[in-house]
Amino acid sequence: MTDTVTPHLITLDTAAQAQLFTDARTANTFTDEPVTDAQLHAIYDLAKYPPTAANTQPLRVLYTRPGETRNRLLTHLSEGNRAKTATAPVVAVLAADTDFHEFIPRIFPIRPEMRDGLAADAAAREGMARFNATLQIGYWLLAVRAAGLAAGPMAGFDAAAVDRDLFADSTWRSLLVVNLGKPGPDAWYPRLPRLDYDDIVRHA
Amino acid sequence: MTDTVTPHLITLDTAAQAQLFTDARTANTFTDEPVTDAQLHAIYDLAKYPPTAANTQPLRVLYTRPGETRNRLLTHLSEGNRAKTATAPVVAVLAADTDFHEFIPRIFPIRPEMRDGLAADAAAREGMARFNATLQIGYWLLAVRAAGLAAGPMAGFDAAAVDRDLFADSTWRSLLVVNLGKPGPDAWYPRLPRLDYDDIVRHA
Repeated sequence: MTDTVTPHLITLDTAAQAQLFTDARTANTFTDEPVTDAQLHAIYDLAKYPPTAANTQPLRVLYTRPGETRNRLLTHLSEGNRAKTATAPVVAVLAADTDFHEFIPRIFPIRPEMRDGLAADAAAREGMARFNATLQIGYWLLAVRAAGLAAGPMAGFDAAAVDRDLFADSTWRSLLVVNLGKPGPDAWYPRLPRLDYDDIVRHA
Repeated sequence: MTDTVTPHLITLDTAAQAQLFTDARTANTFTDEPVTDAQLHAIYDLAKYPPTAANTQPLRVLYTRPGETRNRLLTHLSEGNRAKTATAPVVAVLAADTDFHEFIPRIFPIRPEMRDGLAADAAAREGMARFNATLQIGYWLLAVRAAGLAAGPMAGFDAAAVDRDLFADSTWRSLLVVNLGKPGPDAWYPRLPRLDYDDIVRHA
């Protein structure tokens, strides 16, 4: 079986497939068009729904527009990521909250005592926070595309330095930095190859 | 600003929003309708596109239908997850491949030497594998919904035992177990509350 025989098995309409998956690209340049607070709310109003373990929702987001906090963030990025990040309309720092358990009585009322069990186990909490927040970043990146915006995710940054500098007063731990906006001129490189189904799947 | 004023800022059509985000639910029961190999290919043909760091694509998937491997998997699940997993048409074990770097010359040809740098740093490789495979699970769960199927993700399993039992001959490390199929009777519980925008976002 080849990859080209299967699209009819997708029930999502082809425009939506293109917008979220097949045509969307990681952007490296952005226009001056602002990203509004209302757009950031709308993105969350989609991204909040897909599942997390015990509904824990540990994802947190710091949105920066140009200014002092953005400038501090730039110093923690690898050299090659700085120029494009300086000019993006909005730059998001996606983080996991290791104290997500404080919300459990409100968001997982069927087992409120989970809060106290997790309060006593910082290692379990950190693992659960990082894993589920990362899943949520996957949902969030597709929600950004659903809002008609392009995302430019960057793993090239000093996470420990970001946490010390921007999250010193909190229990947030940075996972990914993502530029947001409308794609500008020459926004992307040619698409890189994807692995084949048979490279990554086993059946049993 | 409340959550209810923002949907018009989403350019994705409302049917697609519902199918992937707002109406879709985690399923706990499934009908007998089979999930075909062609559907599993089609899911990957969407899920493979959204971004990973340096295009590394470390996600791997073991698909099990009822049989011996499925029965072994069941023994590693928490008690409450076993009955529904026994009857799901397909159960996926989503994993990170800590030897993903072997593919780098093919999938990141602009920097093939990254393979050798990562070959010498198992800790960096494991962190990168787990983070990027988890992002890809986020994409994959929405791709399952794009195929008109329901997913039932479960964190309640013994990952070390699954790795010893099912991945002993490989460098795959299990991250999540997910039931797949068409939702059956009483497939889901009432929706649990989501955190508000102001609970999880800061602006700077």
